Amino acid sequence: MARWQPDAPGRLAAAALDLFEEHGYENTTVIEIAEHAGLTKSTFFRYFPDKREVLFGTGTVTDLLVEGITSAPPAAGPLDAVANALDALGRTFFTADRREFSGRRQAVLNANTELREREALKRIDLTASMIEALNHRRVPNLTARVAAKLGTLVWEIAYDRWINTANNEDFGPLARQALTEVRAAGTVR
Amino acid sequence: MARWQPDAPGRLAAAALDLFEEHGYENTTVIEIAEHAGLTKSTFFRYFPDKREVLFGTGTVTDLLVEGITSAPPAAGPLDAVANALDALGRTFFTADRREFSGRRQAVLNANTELREREALKRIDLTASMIEALNHRRVPNLTARVAAKLGTLVWEIAYDRWINTANNEDFGPLARQALTEVRAAGTVR
Repeated sequence: MARWQPDAPGRLAAAALDLFEEHGYENTTVIEIAEHAGLTKSTFFRYFPDKREVLFGTGTVTDLLVEGITSAPPAAGPLDAVANALDALGRTFFTADRREFSGRRQAVLNANTELREREALKRIDLTASMIEALNHRRVPNLTARVAAKLGTLVWEIAYDRWINTANNEDFGPLARQALTEVRAAGTVR
Repeated sequence: MARWQPDAPGRLAAAALDLFEEHGYENTTVIEIAEHAGLTKSTFFRYFPDKREVLFGTGTVTDLLVEGITSAPPAAGPLDAVANALDALGRTFFTADRREFSGRRQAVLNANTELREREALKRIDLTASMIEALNHRRVPNLTARVAAKLGTLVWEIAYDRWINTANNEDFGPLARQALTEVRAAGTVR
């Protein structure tokens, strides 16, 4: 019987990333990932339904984002609520110690169509969660959809800079900066 | 040797839709699709790399969208250029005779994760093509990215209404209406 493993999903993701980089996504099996992490195949499938899923975590980011939107001050506008959530993500998840892993992970995703597809669907589901959380703040649906689209763009810009900048800027301030830029460009004819 | 077939991709898509509806996406093979269309497997693979691709056409929509943005009057703002492209799509592709097929197709996509993933990636690639076309109009990159996000939202709203409304409204006017609504909601705090 498997013993309890501290952060098994994190160890499986790190092992998968090593192997995908070294041998390619297609040439790596779930068994190899589990072995490389010092875990068993059945532990893998306790956390992830398939190989494709191993680099996409266990829903933490969505939970943090929804909670950040929900916990924004009542007077905050929808984009400010999203900014509040991105701040929270930067403090608790996209932390400095995760930056190098995130950059390597993104390079692996970009190189494989199956993984890009999974990422694209995750992005849509994440946007849907943002819209739902904004609706709970009584933001009208169309305004929520606009804010979620712009919030996703802010996220994309900040994330790209976060994993690529040489000067180790934190995710939160990068998101604030991107939000300012998107707002300035936002009055589009 | 296969004879030339008028609109073979269209016939393959129609056959695939019939079979996906009747037996499910998973339970349908490429050979069955080709036979149902009165074509051969090798004809199928001349147009589509795999079964997953058959409901996603042959790039026409992207081409029309890019051309519509490119051919918008020079003075048109970025969102007006996107609206010009959606008008063109409504006149030449999302026409009344394609409405019923489009609605059935969307229901099949929504019911299958593999197809939803492919659709999500297509959407991202389409957005990237919009951004590139806007950049060619000398729209600054960030403005282009905002316009492409909002343009995609306009598309989604209009498309959803087009396939679902009972009163047969045309896609072009629906897109214009959605654009007006998105603009009104667009000054988001």
